[in-house]
Amino acid sequence: MTAMRILIVHAHPEPRSFNGALTDSARALLPTIGHELIVSDLYAMEWDPVSDRRNFTIRADPERYDQQAEERFAASAGSFSSDLRAEMDKLLWADTVIFQFPIWWLGMPAIMKGWIDRVFAVGVAYGGGKWLDQGRLAPRRAMLSVTTGGGAAPYADVGLYGPIDPILYPIHHGILRFTGFQVIEPFIVYGPSRMTELQRAATLAQYRLRLMNLASAPTLPVIHAADYENFVRRQA
Amino acid sequence: MTAMRILIVHAHPEPRSFNGALTDSARALLPTIGHELIVSDLYAMEWDPVSDRRNFTIRADPERYDQQAEERFAASAGSFSSDLRAEMDKLLWADTVIFQFPIWWLGMPAIMKGWIDRVFAVGVAYGGGKWLDQGRLAPRRAMLSVTTGGGAAPYADVGLYGPIDPILYPIHHGILRFTGFQVIEPFIVYGPSRMTELQRAATLAQYRLRLMNLASAPTLPVIHAADYENFVRRQA
Repeated sequence: MTAMRILIVHAHPEPRSFNGALTDSARALLPTIGHELIVSDLYAMEWDPVSDRRNFTIRADPERYDQQAEERFAASAGSFSSDLRAEMDKLLWADTVIFQFPIWWLGMPAIMKGWIDRVFAVGVAYGGGKWLDQGRLAPRRAMLSVTTGGGAAPYADVGLYGPIDPILYPIHHGILRFTGFQVIEPFIVYGPSRMTELQRAATLAQYRLRLMNLASAPTLPVIHAADYENFVRRQA
Repeated sequence: MTAMRILIVHAHPEPRSFNGALTDSARALLPTIGHELIVSDLYAMEWDPVSDRRNFTIRADPERYDQQAEERFAASAGSFSSDLRAEMDKLLWADTVIFQFPIWWLGMPAIMKGWIDRVFAVGVAYGGGKWLDQGRLAPRRAMLSVTTGGGAAPYADVGLYGPIDPILYPIHHGILRFTGFQVIEPFIVYGPSRMTELQRAATLAQYRLRLMNLASAPTLPVIHAADYENFVRRQA
């Protein structure tokens, strides 16, 4: 097995939650099967998710704040704040990133959305016309490992929310695939708080199995940048 | 015209941005046409988007943190933290809520997602089997007013991101319609930073027109809770 460098970005306010148990399983397993592991436990780190002027130690324009322009400047001047720099270093170190979070309001908890907002800066995660399979973060791989509050019924075709794939599309496509990740099929646990202890233990075992087979886990289709470049050129 | 009580939840780190101009237009217009207006300017308020123990002044369970259980307790004990209580009061006061934000990574900036995560608590915004047209926040109305970084091309049918409606679905359906809002068609400005001054002025005029006709603006289809209750019962 090829050794991987795995970053888990973990967001849950209670360490003894099922999200905590999933990441604890990963912490116990991954180093023993030869992988390197770093965990960014966002609540434990008291990660600040608010993207603003404080992202930068020097400002390109001290008057009017244009976040993308500031990011472009900081990427060349090396002037990202130290908390951003630390997370960017982890991201660039990793070849595989796992995002562990409970789905809140059909999306990421704010603390994790703000990790993306701040760390995925122009000149680091995207920019310069590099996207999709040509993206700056290619050929990295990423996987969402998520829990839901209720059971699976709301995510049925005729359920209250509908199927989960379109719900995860903004993350899978707009964040991950856009920046160059190959997206591993998500590991989804529906309603762990409604499970028996036995069901929870079985689910943790399934997760360990997924982690052991991470290198061969199925991925979402790759989309080629060239197709969109042609499209954009036609529009221009 | 019937007077409305309008809450604008505004999220942008630069007051002189186009998002700022849109909300400034609303501030100038709405009171002059008879509406009451409150603006929650999240960056100016230094809103904390991280949902955790600090949401509560008393804890139902000081050991293990179960956010929904804590919310349920706080809703009956009146023990939400003062910053949450203030925003909940505005939400319940309003009959119309406008969310003004730039689309970052196909979603809300973290500071606004965390306004939802914290303010839309069980017992306040949802819970007790009340959802969709029977939701706790019915018969309120809500509208997204959003900007994008690039132009409209990525949101074309064959564009890099694809159509914006499915991208907004987690917000429109999972947050707003779920809690009982009638969802007004979004006001979308593609790439204001790439516009000429004249185009920007014309767009602000269109926004004022939308605000003047807010009561009759088209809404997304209402979905009836009864349909899903039958479905859930069949699954149980």
